[in-house]
Amino acid sequence: MANRIIEKSENILVASHLHPDGDALGSTIAIGKGLEKKGKNVFLYNESLIPDMFSFLPGIKKIKNKIPDSAFFDSAIILDCSGLNRTGKSRKIIENIPKIINIDHHFTNTKFGTEKIIEPNACATAEIVYRLLKEWNITFCKEIAYSIYTGIFTDTGSFRFPNTNKKAFSICMEMLDYGVSPNIVASNIYGSYSVGKIKLVSKLLDSIEFSRNGKISMMVLKQEMLKYANVMDEDISEFINYAENINDVKLAVFIKEDKRGETPYYYVSLRSDGSVNTASIAASYGGGGHEYAAGFSSRLSFTQLRQELMSLADTI
Amino acid sequence: MANRIIEKSENILVASHLHPDGDALGSTIAIGKGLEKKGKNVFLYNESLIPDMFSFLPGIKKIKNKIPDSAFFDSAIILDCSGLNRTGKSRKIIENIPKIINIDHHFTNTKFGTEKIIEPNACATAEIVYRLLKEWNITFCKEIAYSIYTGIFTDTGSFRFPNTNKKAFSICMEMLDYGVSPNIVASNIYGSYSVGKIKLVSKLLDSIEFSRNGKISMMVLKQEMLKYANVMDEDISEFINYAENINDVKLAVFIKEDKRGETPYYYVSLRSDGSVNTASIAASYGGGGHEYAAGFSSRLSFTQLRQELMSLADTI
Repeated sequence: MANRIIEKSENILVASHLHPDGDALGSTIAIGKGLEKKGKNVFLYNESLIPDMFSFLPGIKKIKNKIPDSAFFDSAIILDCSGLNRTGKSRKIIENIPKIINIDHHFTNTKFGTEKIIEPNACATAEIVYRLLKEWNITFCKEIAYSIYTGIFTDTGSFRFPNTNKKAFSICMEMLDYGVSPNIVASNIYGSYSVGKIKLVSKLLDSIEFSRNGKISMMVLKQEMLKYANVMDEDISEFINYAENINDVKLAVFIKEDKRGETPYYYVSLRSDGSVNTASIAASYGGGGHEYAAGFSSRLSFTQLRQELMSLADTI
Repeated sequence: MANRIIEKSENILVASHLHPDGDALGSTIAIGKGLEKKGKNVFLYNESLIPDMFSFLPGIKKIKNKIPDSAFFDSAIILDCSGLNRTGKSRKIIENIPKIINIDHHFTNTKFGTEKIIEPNACATAEIVYRLLKEWNITFCKEIAYSIYTGIFTDTGSFRFPNTNKKAFSICMEMLDYGVSPNIVASNIYGSYSVGKIKLVSKLLDSIEFSRNGKISMMVLKQEMLKYANVMDEDISEFINYAENINDVKLAVFIKEDKRGETPYYYVSLRSDGSVNTASIAASYGGGGHEYAAGFSSRLSFTQLRQELMSLADTI
């Protein structure tokens, strides 16, 4: 059914979610290249700016972050989005496209769109895209191979997460035949820290404190630490992993001070080992998320916020 | 030839290198189990204590750290050792065993032993062991599968290092059929830090300094840092990755002070981005390793060692 829509379409928009990761971008480039090889006019789109770490991907520059007012599309392919709102403000434009094909592997997918290819057992949306391209008899090339490999590599956390399945290995192995160097992907994705980021991590690790029973770890990022390390907009969200992966810790809390608004406020990330429901804690502060990973914003004072969160230790 | 020695042997010692990593231990357990299945009496040996992170490996408890005085062996299989001295003080015992089979993937292997199976293109010694077990028609089981998987997983740095080849993917994928959970391996290997280890990492990151041209990064572990963090024998070798993965760094140096001997000495790990041959630097200090990862011990003073290594920056 999705294939019939694509066959009948001349102009196709391909889009993914805000703040794109390797799977969002890899899936976009790979299916875009496949459609090109089928003779379609494609427009690859992402509302956010593309992080530098993905600039090694062949074809990355084809992804634009503005849809021209004059553009007309017969159909849209939306990748790796659990809901259409994940595409950002462009949702309003996309909703007016006659046919929408929703391709995703999130269990929580809202099943939007005209046609849906939703496979929660796929390790990445790139795994689904791989199968589609095979179905279409597309000849694979370096551009497709790097995109598919990167999608699977990043969404499985370098073959470490529970979604690492046999397909992850077999597809990635096959992509090596088309010229993918695993080390080039890895060194671009995980490879490179600035000296400032190293300094910042050192400070962050130093900031970790624990509840008395050791079940909660708390890591704090203050604006002065960013100044000290001379770091502006580096992505430091991954570093909550340090606070989470400490022996006996059930709940990791990462408090980030944010001063971009008029008054200072805090953004709190929560991660649990599975025994604490982070979504319900976040919800009680007006935030949201998943059972194992959630977040919220707060205008409480740091002292009060810290105390309230630490006091959760008695209940877990 | 190696096979003939094994066929004729009744009692076989299997040993690997000091401070064992996942490949040393995985290869030891896997070939040990294979030999058992061939009806041999095996004694699995490692001179160092086994790091806790490997306690999830089925069969890990079979590895003993003392060879009984009364033991007699027809042959010894030495795994993942570039030289026989890498086995430690037990070298003296091993040298008296009638036949020694040297199985390794280090480019710098000294070719010791009666028979050698040295394959520098293998991603891990576990890859060579896998092929041997197949040649022997051994029925694979969970114990062998976890050992082979862990050997390849750790030696390729979770499929990130330049030695990540197609065999790494195909063998690991096959091991899933025998019950390996990639997430269980990953969460044991990379999963859990003690509070002390977190403190130590913070200090290590703080210690990083650079050559003037930024091409060399140097990280130093002093005994006093271990005391401060109250860490004894944690495996901290992985943290050289921080020093290596800094923008523009060609060569990362990790100097570890060791005071267990009579006089203090230093163990130096080297990692390169591929543009500097670490094996030849290590060899000039009497050490060995791979092109992009090598190491050596030194009794030079810290000041001299630091100066000599930093001066390499002018040549790279």
